Amino acid sequence: MSLLVVGTVAYDSVSTKSGHRQNAPGGSAFYFSISSSFFAKTSLIGVVGTDYSEKYFSMLKKSGVNIDGLEKINGETFRWSGKYHDDDFNQRETLATHLNVLENFNPILNNSHKESKYLFLANIDPKIQTQVLDQMKNKPKMVALDTMNFWIDDHQDKLSSVIENVDIIFMDETEIKSFTKKDNIITAAQFVRDLGPRIVIVKKGEHGSIMFNEGDIFNAPAFPIEQVIDPTGAGDCFAGGFMGYLSGCDDLSPQSLRKALISASVMGSFAVEGFSTEKLSKITHMDIEDRFRGLHGMTNFDPLKNNESLPKRVS
Amino acid sequence: MSLLVVGTVAYDSVSTKSGHRQNAPGGSAFYFSISSSFFAKTSLIGVVGTDYSEKYFSMLKKSGVNIDGLEKINGETFRWSGKYHDDDFNQRETLATHLNVLENFNPILNNSHKESKYLFLANIDPKIQTQVLDQMKNKPKMVALDTMNFWIDDHQDKLSSVIENVDIIFMDETEIKSFTKKDNIITAAQFVRDLGPRIVIVKKGEHGSIMFNEGDIFNAPAFPIEQVIDPTGAGDCFAGGFMGYLSGCDDLSPQSLRKALISASVMGSFAVEGFSTEKLSKITHMDIEDRFRGLHGMTNFDPLKNNESLPKRVS
Repeated sequence: MSLLVVGTVAYDSVSTKSGHRQNAPGGSAFYFSISSSFFAKTSLIGVVGTDYSEKYFSMLKKSGVNIDGLEKINGETFRWSGKYHDDDFNQRETLATHLNVLENFNPILNNSHKESKYLFLANIDPKIQTQVLDQMKNKPKMVALDTMNFWIDDHQDKLSSVIENVDIIFMDETEIKSFTKKDNIITAAQFVRDLGPRIVIVKKGEHGSIMFNEGDIFNAPAFPIEQVIDPTGAGDCFAGGFMGYLSGCDDLSPQSLRKALISASVMGSFAVEGFSTEKLSKITHMDIEDRFRGLHGMTNFDPLKNNESLPKRVS
Repeated sequence: MSLLVVGTVAYDSVSTKSGHRQNAPGGSAFYFSISSSFFAKTSLIGVVGTDYSEKYFSMLKKSGVNIDGLEKINGETFRWSGKYHDDDFNQRETLATHLNVLENFNPILNNSHKESKYLFLANIDPKIQTQVLDQMKNKPKMVALDTMNFWIDDHQDKLSSVIENVDIIFMDETEIKSFTKKDNIITAAQFVRDLGPRIVIVKKGEHGSIMFNEGDIFNAPAFPIEQVIDPTGAGDCFAGGFMGYLSGCDDLSPQSLRKALISASVMGSFAVEGFSTEKLSKITHMDIEDRFRGLHGMTNFDPLKNNESLPKRVS
């Protein structure tokens, strides 16, 4: 089924202990759609400036992304630069953010966009997320949202009004604790579910993720990676695996949601193995399936049958 | 099968944001055996002073622990006191450690101890762990070891010589990184396996644990807890669930090791829900099985069958 994403398309300059990339392609919608396109046809809504390289338009098209909704307007492309701490990838310093063309972005959806069944509101100004949501012809089958600390800390009202209208929300552990002012993720997830979203997905980086879906909790481990190169965009690729899986099979059963989260984990693991989409551009669908099978191998254990018990001391 | 543990038996004084306990029963062998006894007959080797309350001897006996090897000698019982940070249970400050009777402890095993098939070297001076291992009549079917940052940082040689002779080692994430000087747990686990232990279990607290067993990796989530009261002893109870399970069923197959790690996770989750063994003393075998089933429910997902593939974009 049709999958639509709105988010940023950017030039990222990133330093990690493995090296540096200057003006590499990035942005939440860019990462998301490169990832989701392995699973399902994805259309991107975003904006770039006149400096955006033809090379990256081609890269998106080659990945199968529909970029009819990627506007090119006068000005410079959104730019972000940051540096990760040498001994902790969970800590990063933003060196510069230049909104540029993003500042006056007013997304306009075409008729085909408006009929998308799956919609992902990637990390961007909640005002823009709302503008997209409001243009949908019918309520999509599923709307998911991602955000970041900047919107949580300084624009909570604007953010909360979008959150009320989505089915799924992605937040990392720090974000959900800060957004809810709760220090336990079970109570924090419950708090967010009470605002509207049926499903809350808490991302824990190398520690995997947890999906809260009504009474159901599902735990997905991260695929273990020996050498993390650059975590930029990993959360977007994670969401891309999740939404790509769901719209690809158009099945929202609990088992399908679980497999979507495992697919998310797999896509996040590839994302961190290279700068920008350098690793993702080299993998095949079979590589994804191999890691999916790998995660099944790393998590399965025999259940206790109905009348079976665990070993018990005979005193 | 017979399970033997050597470790500390202590009076702990602990402060967390939930409250304070003064001179509560604790110690690595105490926690371990209370936990393992749910699964299998456990014998404890340890030492206490003349101030050790009759009440706690009774508590151990009532739990089914064989305390023939718990010596009472002149002097005071080992004492530890600490305080956990209000907003991070992973950070604690040791306020005082008084070795007392532990200082001159020379464990003596009786014939029955020496024939134990499962041996757990709980956190204690590696010299004492070696003394116990050396007294075993035959090589036990399985020897496991736990330790802590103190021995890793300041007594690495002594510790390494025990590690070479065990089958399984438990370390938390910080400990294994500090012991191996590697910042990735896959390479760190491989480093430890090269020293001798066939199986390396990395404990990650609320993020669960990972077992490295030759080429096999198994990921066990933590059972999600809404309110952590006191994490003291959680690692010992975790190990108690693991070793209790294995010696209780006497099965070292890969599936059994996985179920042992899930049992470990369950026992750790009960441990943190009360000070000392306050919660553990109230649970039943059925409560353990409920959480075991719960963890199965939180982790299972349908595998890809041989000819099945993940959804794929039709371009």
